[in-house]
Amino acid sequence: MVKNTSNISTEPYKGVRDFYPEDLAVQNYIFSIWKKVVESFGYNEYNASVLEPSDLYKAKTSEEIVNEQTYTFTDRGDREVTLRPEMTPTVARMIASRKRELGFPARWYSIPNVFRYERPQRGRLREHWQLNADVFGIAGTEADVETIKLAYNIMKAFGADDSHFEIKINSRKLLNAIFNSWYELDENQAQAFQRLLDKKSKLPEEVFYGEVEKVIGKPLEFLNLSHQNPTYEQAMAMPDIREAKLELDSIVEQLKSFGISNVSYDENIIRGFDYYTGTVFEVFDTDPANNRSLFGGGRYDNLLSIFGGESLPAFGFGMGDVTIRDFLETHELLPSYVSTTDIMICIMDESSRSYADKVADELRADGKKVSVNYSYRPVVDQIKSARKQSIPYFIVIGEEESLKKTYDIKQVNQHE
Amino acid sequence: MVKNTSNISTEPYKGVRDFYPEDLAVQNYIFSIWKKVVESFGYNEYNASVLEPSDLYKAKTSEEIVNEQTYTFTDRGDREVTLRPEMTPTVARMIASRKRELGFPARWYSIPNVFRYERPQRGRLREHWQLNADVFGIAGTEADVETIKLAYNIMKAFGADDSHFEIKINSRKLLNAIFNSWYELDENQAQAFQRLLDKKSKLPEEVFYGEVEKVIGKPLEFLNLSHQNPTYEQAMAMPDIREAKLELDSIVEQLKSFGISNVSYDENIIRGFDYYTGTVFEVFDTDPANNRSLFGGGRYDNLLSIFGGESLPAFGFGMGDVTIRDFLETHELLPSYVSTTDIMICIMDESSRSYADKVADELRADGKKVSVNYSYRPVVDQIKSARKQSIPYFIVIGEEESLKKTYDIKQVNQHE
Repeated sequence: MVKNTSNISTEPYKGVRDFYPEDLAVQNYIFSIWKKVVESFGYNEYNASVLEPSDLYKAKTSEEIVNEQTYTFTDRGDREVTLRPEMTPTVARMIASRKRELGFPARWYSIPNVFRYERPQRGRLREHWQLNADVFGIAGTEADVETIKLAYNIMKAFGADDSHFEIKINSRKLLNAIFNSWYELDENQAQAFQRLLDKKSKLPEEVFYGEVEKVIGKPLEFLNLSHQNPTYEQAMAMPDIREAKLELDSIVEQLKSFGISNVSYDENIIRGFDYYTGTVFEVFDTDPANNRSLFGGGRYDNLLSIFGGESLPAFGFGMGDVTIRDFLETHELLPSYVSTTDIMICIMDESSRSYADKVADELRADGKKVSVNYSYRPVVDQIKSARKQSIPYFIVIGEEESLKKTYDIKQVNQHE
Repeated sequence: MVKNTSNISTEPYKGVRDFYPEDLAVQNYIFSIWKKVVESFGYNEYNASVLEPSDLYKAKTSEEIVNEQTYTFTDRGDREVTLRPEMTPTVARMIASRKRELGFPARWYSIPNVFRYERPQRGRLREHWQLNADVFGIAGTEADVETIKLAYNIMKAFGADDSHFEIKINSRKLLNAIFNSWYELDENQAQAFQRLLDKKSKLPEEVFYGEVEKVIGKPLEFLNLSHQNPTYEQAMAMPDIREAKLELDSIVEQLKSFGISNVSYDENIIRGFDYYTGTVFEVFDTDPANNRSLFGGGRYDNLLSIFGGESLPAFGFGMGDVTIRDFLETHELLPSYVSTTDIMICIMDESSRSYADKVADELRADGKKVSVNYSYRPVVDQIKSARKQSIPYFIVIGEEESLKKTYDIKQVNQHE
């Protein structure tokens, strides 16, 4: 199509999506499953503005995200503002602000849009929506177990089989214990090691091991604390390592007692954010065509202290609409599109309009969703329009119907 | 409370809102009424990103808004981006982009957040949510009548009486006819006149009339085309004035035939946006304590041509959450807050946890929304937490319940 260059483009901004009704129906389907399952676990919905003071992200969000991937600008009043890149700092800010008035444990969820300035690619856009479910005030592993069970139940509610996905868990507490007690690293070394681990899958193996050796001052002996490991008994004799590993084992066992068997310990699960303090988990698609991390979360018991109050036990996860949509498409789990509108009323001529309007209002009073076609075009064209909009039923109102005060509801043939 | 200055603030960004669960419940209530009514008229939901190329607003949004009130910034890739100040240019862009594939008439709605850089005050925040309902492809007054009826039905669905609000309508076509045929203004004069009219209520009367005289070169003779007007017959003899006025009268008559009587012609209704071409309407709160414009809309048949294609008849309106919430509060029409969570399960000791988890899952399978209190604190404190969260029911599970496999559901006294 030749376009006049002085015309305004119909393209959206780069890396974001337009949601036509058939796209929004998919999003609404995903959101409705999310809402249903998290509310069944007693989660209450909250929200906040997409605009946040930039300072909010400077303390605990990963360095890479803040420096290279946020939308940050200065407003007309000289304030530094950021389009939120994630929701956790916001929910922590809100909870910290009213800690005295709120009842605990508090289970909160939201489905915000979040922004990252990234090169758009499959599964990674500049804006996506994300379920955030966080529970505050439970120090014990009950929160870890319930949250992972909640994530599992969401996958099941989408119709996924246990074979479609797997849950991998690890513990920052365990990692830190290994860093401290086994490798005897100082804080800087530990942080550098953790960052390397976070990048492990993107690095060639020999580069990873070389870099790790530089950081810890000797070759890597082990990371995976398994019975197969020759150093297992020696490591487990160290009290902090032992405690953290037994806690992780107990979480896996508790999940298995709820019938969740596709869960296992994986030493490679790190999660990018600096604020995690305990259990971390990630859910992976097992399909070779889409074999990637779908979502994850973890425990962050110290984040609230950045606001100057006491810390508060917290456990949460975020689940993005783009990755979950890819998953549902890969496994053919998305319902097909039907309009929310039930019936289109086609009017044959202007003199039939009054009866058509009356029928529309009667059907609406009866709970039906009804659109009236006021184009007065040939009925065949009006039905074609209903088909284009995926409206399942139509009614034709002409002189005869108006006189007799009757009408028939007919099905729109969707494939004509 | 004394705060360490190095701590991060818990305040949101200036002029935007945090939605705690009880605030979001109000918003969800408003959104649910909007959705229910517009869907009953066959509207389909769409959405788009809050980020739009700045060019989109340069053609037809009001000058004041674009130059002084938008959030516009340059992204890391040197693109000029705006946080949408209104939704109409976006929906026009999306419809224009797929005009050939869509079925018409197309009825679309969305509930986007929109941004304006304004000094925050009552009813005016920097971010608000807004129902946008637009119908495309109906050239006749059927669209005008149906849309105003839809707006009326939304007010009624909120529980408003006809005496709580009034609908005022005018016509840009009529105004333009008066400008052209009666005052014989050129395009610049007409535009200057229209901008003055838009500011009329903010100007002292003598300033308004003085400015108008400067623009039109003589004293203002009339604006209100009523029978009381001495120039009425003379003006109605002019064909373009006559046609536009009869069309407006017909819309009022059609609305009355649907039982909508709180609607009348008002020459002062202008609407700020430059893109309106025909009927415009505004809904006012009649309460002296909140006597302001609640929302409005109108016909904009030429907006789609800014994208280089043909124009397309269009009629729509926007209804903001802040003003409608003020209205509902003024008239005491808001429901009181209850948590979405039905039941809190209070556990007396860790040995009762396993039965408590079982009860929770059984109740969830039965459609109940259940939160489990894993604090193991005294039961009285757990019930206090349920009260703070406005959860209506609780269950206590201890040794006895675990042994006998029974439990009682009790009501939380919300005022203890």
